[in-house]
Amino acid sequence: MINVGIVGATGYTGTELVRFLSRHPQVRIAGVTSQSYVDQRYADIFPNTERFIDLACEEQDLDKLLAKCDVIFTALPHGVSMEVVGAAAAKGKKVIDLGADYRFDDVRVYEEWYKIEHKTPELAKKAVYGLPEIHRDEIKNSQVIGNPGCYPTSIILGLAPLLKHGQVKVETLIIDAKSGVSGGGRGLNLAFHYAECNENLKAYNIGVHRHTPEIEQELSKLARTDVRVSFTPHLIPMTRGILSTIYASLHNIDTDTEELLNIYRDFYKDEFFVRIHPEGRYPQTKYVYGSNFCDIGLQYDPRTNRVIVVSVIDNLVKGASGQAIQNMNILFGLPEKTGLDYPALWP
Amino acid sequence: MINVGIVGATGYTGTELVRFLSRHPQVRIAGVTSQSYVDQRYADIFPNTERFIDLACEEQDLDKLLAKCDVIFTALPHGVSMEVVGAAAAKGKKVIDLGADYRFDDVRVYEEWYKIEHKTPELAKKAVYGLPEIHRDEIKNSQVIGNPGCYPTSIILGLAPLLKHGQVKVETLIIDAKSGVSGGGRGLNLAFHYAECNENLKAYNIGVHRHTPEIEQELSKLARTDVRVSFTPHLIPMTRGILSTIYASLHNIDTDTEELLNIYRDFYKDEFFVRIHPEGRYPQTKYVYGSNFCDIGLQYDPRTNRVIVVSVIDNLVKGASGQAIQNMNILFGLPEKTGLDYPALWP
Amino acid sequence: MINVGIVGATGYTGTELVRFLSRHPQVRIAGVTSQSYVDQRYADIFPNTERFIDLACEEQDLDKLLAKCDVIFTALPHGVSMEVVGAAAAKGKKVIDLGADYRFDDVRVYEEWYKIEHKTPELAKKAVYGLPEIHRDEIKNSQVIGNPGCYPTSIILGLAPLLKHGQVKVETLIIDAKSGVSGGGRGLNLAFHYAECNENLKAYNIGVHRHTPEIEQELSKLARTDVRVSFTPHLIPMTRGILSTIYASLHNIDTDTEELLNIYRDFYKDEFFVRIHPEGRYPQTKYVYGSNFCDIGLQYDPRTNRVIVVSVIDNLVKGASGQAIQNMNILFGLPEKTGLDYPALWP
Amino acid sequence: MINVGIVGATGYTGTELVRFLSRHPQVRIAGVTSQSYVDQRYADIFPNTERFIDLACEEQDLDKLLAKCDVIFTALPHGVSMEVVGAAAAKGKKVIDLGADYRFDDVRVYEEWYKIEHKTPELAKKAVYGLPEIHRDEIKNSQVIGNPGCYPTSIILGLAPLLKHGQVKVETLIIDAKSGVSGGGRGLNLAFHYAECNENLKAYNIGVHRHTPEIEQELSKLARTDVRVSFTPHLIPMTRGILSTIYASLHNIDTDTEELLNIYRDFYKDEFFVRIHPEGRYPQTKYVYGSNFCDIGLQYDPRTNRVIVVSVIDNLVKGASGQAIQNMNILFGLPEKTGLDYPALWP
Repeated sequence: MINVGIVGATGYTGTELVRFLSRHPQVRIAGVTSQSYVDQRYADIFPNTERFIDLACEEQDLDKLLAKCDVIFTALPHGVSMEVVGAAAAKGKKVIDLGADYRFDDVRVYEEWYKIEHKTPELAKKAVYGLPEIHRDEIKNSQVIGNPGCYPTSIILGLAPLLKHGQVKVETLIIDAKSGVSGGGRGLNLAFHYAECNENLKAYNIGVHRHTPEIEQELSKLARTDVRVSFTPHLIPMTRGILSTIYASLHNIDTDTEELLNIYRDFYKDEFFVRIHPEGRYPQTKYVYGSNFCDIGLQYDPRTNRVIVVSVIDNLVKGASGQAIQNMNILFGLPEKTGLDYPALWP
Repeated sequence: MINVGIVGATGYTGTELVRFLSRHPQVRIAGVTSQSYVDQRYADIFPNTERFIDLACEEQDLDKLLAKCDVIFTALPHGVSMEVVGAAAAKGKKVIDLGADYRFDDVRVYEEWYKIEHKTPELAKKAVYGLPEIHRDEIKNSQVIGNPGCYPTSIILGLAPLLKHGQVKVETLIIDAKSGVSGGGRGLNLAFHYAECNENLKAYNIGVHRHTPEIEQELSKLARTDVRVSFTPHLIPMTRGILSTIYASLHNIDTDTEELLNIYRDFYKDEFFVRIHPEGRYPQTKYVYGSNFCDIGLQYDPRTNRVIVVSVIDNLVKGASGQAIQNMNILFGLPEKTGLDYPALWP
Repeated sequence: MINVGIVGATGYTGTELVRFLSRHPQVRIAGVTSQSYVDQRYADIFPNTERFIDLACEEQDLDKLLAKCDVIFTALPHGVSMEVVGAAAAKGKKVIDLGADYRFDDVRVYEEWYKIEHKTPELAKKAVYGLPEIHRDEIKNSQVIGNPGCYPTSIILGLAPLLKHGQVKVETLIIDAKSGVSGGGRGLNLAFHYAECNENLKAYNIGVHRHTPEIEQELSKLARTDVRVSFTPHLIPMTRGILSTIYASLHNIDTDTEELLNIYRDFYKDEFFVRIHPEGRYPQTKYVYGSNFCDIGLQYDPRTNRVIVVSVIDNLVKGASGQAIQNMNILFGLPEKTGLDYPALWP
Repeated sequence: MINVGIVGATGYTGTELVRFLSRHPQVRIAGVTSQSYVDQRYADIFPNTERFIDLACEEQDLDKLLAKCDVIFTALPHGVSMEVVGAAAAKGKKVIDLGADYRFDDVRVYEEWYKIEHKTPELAKKAVYGLPEIHRDEIKNSQVIGNPGCYPTSIILGLAPLLKHGQVKVETLIIDAKSGVSGGGRGLNLAFHYAECNENLKAYNIGVHRHTPEIEQELSKLARTDVRVSFTPHLIPMTRGILSTIYASLHNIDTDTEELLNIYRDFYKDEFFVRIHPEGRYPQTKYVYGSNFCDIGLQYDPRTNRVIVVSVIDNLVKGASGQAIQNMNILFGLPEKTGLDYPALWP
């Protein structure tokens, strides 16, 4: 059994970790920490977990937690996890950080976009960007994993095959992304107040969203050239789900939808968690609701010689906690889908 | 392995059966039938099930289906399943009917409320009302199970302890129930058209809902006296979930919330799928979202000497398909929670 | 023109006042105050009001405000308005208070339920409960109006005809009420965080909600006897709307739905804002969405000799700001529907 | 008074016409027709309109209707209105058609995209595209108005200033549009069934939506060159609202957000129904909920030299019935905002 600790267990990604890990056949949840709910039974805070976890939230006492854990998940706001991750790594523990602190190859990019100094730049440099479908081999032997952001996961998986095959004019990349409200977390904020976002729709952080450099870093590596994208996130009145609509002009003017789909089918042929939709069908967010899948469809438009890719994930699962567990499975040599192979809810 | 057939697999309860059964460790789905989608791959109709079921929908050819199945689930409108159930029973197969046709001890009550003649009254008489927490022993040895309705499940479980203990004046029972829209099924109907029921709330079928006689039948047996209730269903702008608020005057005027809760804790002490909430906390439908639990809380009101019970289920799981699988587990001697022990999604 | 001041203009009831008053043909909005948005243009805080109000929010300087206003609306949390109302009244101004401070005939009831000492008990005694359909004559000559709560409005209007006619056994009254989330106001609270209440449903404050004494005060007067009710509020995943389902046993066992409806038709025959639905149709909250109507339907159930009344309002309009303006119209001798006679949105 | 007839009054755009026209100070609704509800009182079909319209639905008897009307609104599916419009025009009546039949300068484009032969091509040629902010002068003297589609309205208004000023490289135009479900109409369809689209999000008709040629026709005229766009519509789980996110590369590489906003402010300086948001704020669909406004914001992104424009409308008002009434006001020489100058609901 793998002994697991969750630091910051009472946010939405924390509780999704508990949902999956409490049912994972190779895992024992050894400890959960929370600043706001110390000494409260976890199942009293999240009564949906009653019967599945019988722990109380601990104060964040790292030594105590590390002593009983083989791996730590840090589900904390950016900037806050660095200390925890540093300490855990120093003790030789594996760490999967669900925040942004360990996602960047170049710490200066992080510091520029997040306006904060990195406290463990050496460790950040060695950390691996935990997108298994792209970086599986590096993940296997890493100690610290920077678990990808939700938007980036949907976008990078949605574009990887085309970029790898050099199909698109990278300077034309436009990403129009839409997220459910749980992506904003459990912290109180007027923007996520029910009466403000129900029956409402908005764009936000146009051109300046912090997922932009993360997206560009990974797309650039795939394309083997510098990629700069337009990325516009939107807030959708639903709890879960991200749908990214991606526009790109193609080099080749003699292609069609089926040919492009074949590139995807080939690229992802061994991937359990990526499903390519047939021509004429596009993925909907509910196809992946509560599950670890990334569903992708696309359309070639001969009128404009553009491809339009649609990529959907559940922001809290493949976009956060499910992917983190997928990374854990890789780190510990387990079959990658262990504890994660559930279909989405419908309806 | 148990070979399972699902008749009417493309409605909402049908697809919930597929979701759970495709992951059930002792089950092989041997066939799925559908009138509307013959020869279409199931995973093309419900793309969320891709990777979990690799069957096409069959025409309803009973002989063919029965030949390969140990048990049949019929997820059909009331009145339609009688023929299927009759034929299956004649071949000695077990049948779990998710409709209303086999829920009544007295066929005349069925015929009066459903305005239809029963085609297999003898079989109906032998069928068992499949609410495991109440009728587990009869279920074990039955051949045909009438799987309970969604509203009745929440209500009967919510009242059983009080009625068994003779605490309530049965003539004062009032049940105000609220259901998500998936309870109306997948058939098209202006009442379930998005723009008509979103941001809207209504009561319907006041005093004449067909779940009334089913509720009264079971409550009467528990109370060992004739029970007649006021039952008012409401349609709530959400997909899943039922919450029943139950009002009853008490015989005893010298009680309190904790004492009443203890009756529930005792009554359900061995039940995995019933969770009693502590004093001062009432269950919310999301605590059971997508899961097979029934969560119950209550409040004694000394000002009026009434108890108010709140009981929640997921209408498609404990209120339909999850309960049906729980019944199958009992029928086949498996641990009752096999394939069903998942926590609800939150958020 | 009536010069109007709104104290606390940036909550939901405040901005509904602005929506209606900015279009009211006899009103000039002379000043809006807000603690949180001093000196900000109102239309920058609520861009939907751009073109309709060209004021900035003022600090709460009562002397300044009172000098330019004929009437003050106080849209403040309970306990906070007493000082404002007292000062305004001292200067001879009319005040319509949308909070709870001036709704009670007996200040001790207020103090007991709200756990706060009343600062202007004399004024509270003279204040009139501003439900025009019941207290129109007292409202005409009052100085301070305690504008009714949202739940009480729907309930009192839903029961008045029956109580006046002595039809119901008052000790059997049970009120199961459901409200949209905007009823919780604009203040941040985990209970109203989108991801916590979307696709969710719950009961709250069972037996102890502060609207209970207000409901009982008015029902008692109508019934000319002490009335004590069971009142259970629920939170519904929608922005606007209240639906109250009211259960009562009848003295008369020889009646029917039509006869009871006639009592309502007669009672409300001159009321523009109360609409009685025909037999077999019950009101839905969307029928009154954004409007000042209260729609009522009912069903007599001969099986239990109970009447079930369904009463709906928009909690922010007839349940708050619309009713407040209706009161203002009465106070100033205007036709009661001035500035309020708009149909609800559908869909 | 203008005598108005509504043909097809029981769809969503029909009932929005009734909502506004029943309160329009210069209008008398002379007749409403419906195929499905002949002889039923309109207020019994849409109880929200009780007190505002006292007519029953008529069979579609054109002679009878035309005899009592000065202007006809046709709120019918495309292809169906041609006969009505032809007959009305032949009698010299003004007609405002809310469908697609009279929106195209070139009938062949209509026939190609809608796969139907036009029955009144001469009349179609003379009809005016009823977008007042762009074609006010032609509207004044026209007889038949082709009222714009919902998506096109938001997009054309969102791009007109930039195209007129020759700022954008037209071959780079990408439009990612999102609509609430009421845009799909009141007809039953699994895609608009509550449980299928709630908590869900999808793209549809990528590259082939029928609003594409309408958008391109108008953008081409504004740009004085042939424009071909990528247009991707999405279905959002909300009832009302359209938000179009528009991407364009600029010729000028030395600009900023404020400079671009000034072009919009200038272009729309006399328009009541177009509101330009200040730098750093983008419009949300709820800012226009239930109202006839089009709100526009934009952001210049120096990293990619693109402008991103966000344009929102209520699809049923400025995107359909409100705009139709705005056109009627122009046709009859009334102030354009008569009967339409209401702020949106918030929340």
